[in-house]
Amino acid sequence: MPKRVDLALLPAEAAPMAGDCYVVVDVLRATTTIAVLFARGLRELLVADSLERARELARRDALLLFGEVGGLPPAGFDHGNSPVEASTLDLVGAGAVLFTTNGTRALCGLPPPPATICTGAPANLGAVVEHLLRQQHIVVVCAGEDRGRRFALEDFAAAGRIIRETARRAPGAELGDAARLALEAIGPAGGPDRAAALIAGSEHARALSAGGLGADVAFAVRDDTSAATPVVANRGEGWALLTDRR
Amino acid sequence: MPKRVDLALLPAEAAPMAGDCYVVVDVLRATTTIAVLFARGLRELLVADSLERARELARRDALLLFGEVGGLPPAGFDHGNSPVEASTLDLVGAGAVLFTTNGTRALCGLPPPPATICTGAPANLGAVVEHLLRQQHIVVVCAGEDRGRRFALEDFAAAGRIIRETARRAPGAELGDAARLALEAIGPAGGPDRAAALIAGSEHARALSAGGLGADVAFAVRDDTSAATPVVANRGEGWALLTDRR
Repeated sequence: MPKRVDLALLPAEAAPMAGDCYVVVDVLRATTTIAVLFARGLRELLVADSLERARELARRDALLLFGEVGGLPPAGFDHGNSPVEASTLDLVGAGAVLFTTNGTRALCGLPPPPATICTGAPANLGAVVEHLLRQQHIVVVCAGEDRGRRFALEDFAAAGRIIRETARRAPGAELGDAARLALEAIGPAGGPDRAAALIAGSEHARALSAGGLGADVAFAVRDDTSAATPVVANRGEGWALLTDRR
Repeated sequence: MPKRVDLALLPAEAAPMAGDCYVVVDVLRATTTIAVLFARGLRELLVADSLERARELARRDALLLFGEVGGLPPAGFDHGNSPVEASTLDLVGAGAVLFTTNGTRALCGLPPPPATICTGAPANLGAVVEHLLRQQHIVVVCAGEDRGRRFALEDFAAAGRIIRETARRAPGAELGDAARLALEAIGPAGGPDRAAALIAGSEHARALSAGGLGADVAFAVRDDTSAATPVVANRGEGWALLTDRR
């Protein structure tokens, strides 16, 4: 059972928190897309910390290439970073590479083993919380914006969903200040919560909607569209390999 | 009149926000102490980014030395980082040096001119808001904990006080996501606010109280015990010179 839950408001806060399980949240849209990719049957996913590395990894192993820069798929990519698009694909047994501006960078920058790393979002809320209930010191990490240098309200609110459900199931866990703040922002366990409204009202959500990607925002606030628990199974310089732990 | 108000949850977020006026908040206790030092008649205050530099600056100009490491005044310091202690001193015309773990480091790390830098806390709420109403793009900066690498709930709540009062007086100003979150956490303008409860309930406040410094926490949540607006008037490598703008 968890003894403590912390929330890193930016990726740079995460390592000093010295958790034994890190959960990266980039709800608009990387960790939502990742949950959906595994729900569609993906076998493994390489995430990269740069566009060049993503291209190189995909070329080397002839993998599908997903991702975005400025919200849109770069030249030569097979697909964007869109959970709606991902939900239409048959990926059974496939491998893929994903690069996004914030989420995949955050995944590549976290502490090395023995700490474990997984990804979470409302899309895989139930699955990720089941996984977290077997950990000791959980650190939920907001991927943020602007390469992780800026706070993202949508990640904070989505993290609040994960913290709230974890705290409900593990009522003895101590909560750090930022984790308590997230609960106060979305509302305490047991009542309605404001997470979806905070996510949809964030500056990033409004920019996506203005760019014609409002369907991805609507998808990202839905709970449990995936039963996957993506975990980092292997890592190297600038990349991490995710598999579905379920 | 302000056009936009942003909130940097950690000092590292501040520079990319490209404000033209930064307000550093380290309510427990540096920016509360600074407000009180000027209220007691201090003429100028050098803040330093390291203990060694603080000692050197004080020695060079035979200045009073204030500050803390681990909450307590280091060997050879004249005074701690305590607003309660500061409020008992006669400092008319004096100069001093201050070093603290988070607040003075944050002040030394902000963008260079033409951006301007001041310090805020509930202690000088009215004065600092008057100053902010003459700025365009305000960035309130939480000094944080652990040398600014960790989020501090008490700074967030105190920043919320400043943002709430600024937004009430400048209702046309756009608020960034984190600034809106702070308003939601303490409650919107016009009603009661929860800032004092959040400050007093923070992990840092509880640690100070456990260490016998609860009177400083009680002092820090009080509004307008000072009419000072400390601003950075000059800067060099690892130091900044504050004077009272009023």
